[in-house]
Amino acid sequence: MAGRFITLEGLDGAGKSTQLDAVRDWLAERGVDALFTREPGGTPLGERLRELLLSPDTEVGLDAETLLMFAARQEHLDRVIRPALAAGRWVVCDRFTDATFAYQGGGRGVPFERIAVLEQWVQRGLSPDLTLLFDLSTELAAARMAASRALDRFEREARDFHERVRGAYLARAAAEPARFAVFDASQPPATVRAAVQARLAELVGADR
Amino acid sequence: MAGRFITLEGLDGAGKSTQLDAVRDWLAERGVDALFTREPGGTPLGERLRELLLSPDTEVGLDAETLLMFAARQEHLDRVIRPALAAGRWVVCDRFTDATFAYQGGGRGVPFERIAVLEQWVQRGLSPDLTLLFDLSTELAAARMAASRALDRFEREARDFHERVRGAYLARAAAEPARFAVFDASQPPATVRAAVQARLAELVGADR
Ligand SMILES: Nc1ncnc2c1ncn2[C@@H]1O[C@H](COP(=O)(O)OP(=O)(O)OP(=O)(O)O)[C@@H](O)[C@H]1O
Ligand SMILES: Nc1ncnc2c1ncn2[C@@H]1O[C@H](COP(=O)(O)OP(=O)(O)OP(=O)(O)O)[C@@H](O)[C@H]1O
Ligand SMILES: [Mg+2]
Ligand SMILES: [Mg+2]
Repeated sequence: MAGRFITLEGLDGAGKSTQLDAVRDWLAERGVDALFTREPGGTPLGERLRELLLSPDTEVGLDAETLLMFAARQEHLDRVIRPALAAGRWVVCDRFTDATFAYQGGGRGVPFERIAVLEQWVQRGLSPDLTLLFDLSTELAAARMAASRALDRFEREARDFHERVRGAYLARAAAEPARFAVFDASQPPATVRAAVQARLAELVGADR
Repeated sequence: MAGRFITLEGLDGAGKSTQLDAVRDWLAERGVDALFTREPGGTPLGERLRELLLSPDTEVGLDAETLLMFAARQEHLDRVIRPALAAGRWVVCDRFTDATFAYQGGGRGVPFERIAVLEQWVQRGLSPDLTLLFDLSTELAAARMAASRALDRFEREARDFHERVRGAYLARAAAEPARFAVFDASQPPATVRAAVQARLAELVGADR
């Protein structure tokens, strides 16, 4: 079975980490050698850029921030993801370029065409074989993250932001239906898990 | 007189810093308000990226390094260069994007078309009004830098590298003759200075 590149996407609280286990268990049952990763993927540059972007004394413009994210992604791809795929391993990544389209693009307004230019520059045509998108209303996502407090003004602004993020994710899924599998993440974890594993079986069906 | 964007380019030792004074004096004599800068231009991100790229424990691939250089350039443009030009000031910059084409492109092999994609992404059509290219043989440049020692094997390899850098600079000048002024930097400083100042007079001639 050839190595595949799988990504998990969705709002904070949608259940990516929870369903990563569904993928992990499914691959383990089949004895598939897989690498589990997430950006910045443990590369020295990625770790330094993460520090830099989190540091309060490095104010960075949105365009420069987008370039930095792709610089970290370039290293993650070249040093971690591509070597694993070349060795026939599966790679399962918690968020990838679709998150840049959703957050920097939909959320913060970097034009999608500009992000697409950097995607092509860095990935040179490499794209996930399958992207699992866990779709959830922003209300439910916020509730999962913050229990049952009423939303204050700041949190409501954050909700508009997250509506745009969700919309951008759904638009990408609609534009590339063969790559995306969209799950209703409001369903119970076991229901989502079964759907995820069915989609993985479909993906490898082609190899049989 | 509208603000102009001038860049100085050439090998190490070609005489950029020396001829910056020719530009400075010429502008000062005319009472022109000018900003003198160089990358990373004193932006917080630029300074942090410079540290990061110089640190021996951050090994970075060539593609990621190129993205980082453009991230620093984005900040330098957005926070320093564009505001100065918008205020009607002249901006004189010691090396700019042509140096990326020459060093990362010609010297280290990043394809020019790939650099051109990032140039367009970051600059959105803004380009220097005039680029002063100080052209010099690699022998003379090395001699100026290192006095009269014989070149060892490492320094000879560095010479091949610098031949490619020089070639890339000259190719860019040939492709954009209206923007570039190429000076024979083997001439005495006063001769080069006179030629530089004559070219500046030509540039503003259009305003009269
Ligand atoms: N299908 C589900 N139904 C109800 N609760 C869920 C479901 N999936 C996950 N949760 C819960 O929601 C919370 C967030 O889940 P999880 O950490 O998997 O989300 P995530 O998408 O990885 O978020 P982040 O982007 O912050 O990492 C956790 O408390 C988790 O137990
Ligand atoms: N036209 C010239 N003739 C002879 N020597 C020169 C000439 N121009 C500069 N030099 C000398 O060459 C050396 C390098 O000059 P300069 O520092 O101006 O070069 P540079 O292009 O700014 O180099 P770098 O890229 O390293 O900053 C200096 O010692 C300078 O005095
Ligand atoms: Mg998670
Ligand atoms: Mg100099």
